[in-house]
Amino acid sequence: TEDTALARSAMELRCQCVGTHSKFIHPKFIQNVNLTPSGPHCKNVEVIATLTDGREVCLEPTAPWVKLIIKAILDK
Amino acid sequence: TEDTALARSAMELRCQCVGTHSKFIHPKFIQNVNLTPSGPHCKNVEVIATLTDGREVCLEPTAPWVKLIIKAILDK
Repeated sequence: TEDTALARSAMELRCQCVGTHSKFIHPKFIQNVNLTPSGPHCKNVEVIATLTDGREVCLEPTAPWVKLIIKAILDK
Repeated sequence: TEDTALARSAMELRCQCVGTHSKFIHPKFIQNVNLTPSGPHCKNVEVIATLTDGREVCLEPTAPWVKLIIKAILDK
């Protein structure tokens, strides 16, 4: 709905992730990655990947493979 | 509109950035950062920061300060 879209594009008022996906996801299946710093809305840093099939998965910001994927996107 | 929201959340069909903001932005003004790998839709890696005031700015993926900000978000 439009409300959801607005909330997404503007500011979320709570954490978006209830958990994180622990298994490696190949970068070719990643459409984009959204990084949200911690803040008053949520004490956790949140890393949400949108996959090529449209699914959104939360990733663990401290996981080495997650950092590597982000580095790979930036360096490509 | 809903179409815009759908396009954003699913897949963009073209580059989103026409240029990049070159001046340093303090992390405290950054609400979130979206990384999109290059692909058939766009030959550039795109880094779009949403600022705390809701504005969206394109950042240069190769700029050292941009990499540092992303690292800072992940390490916090």
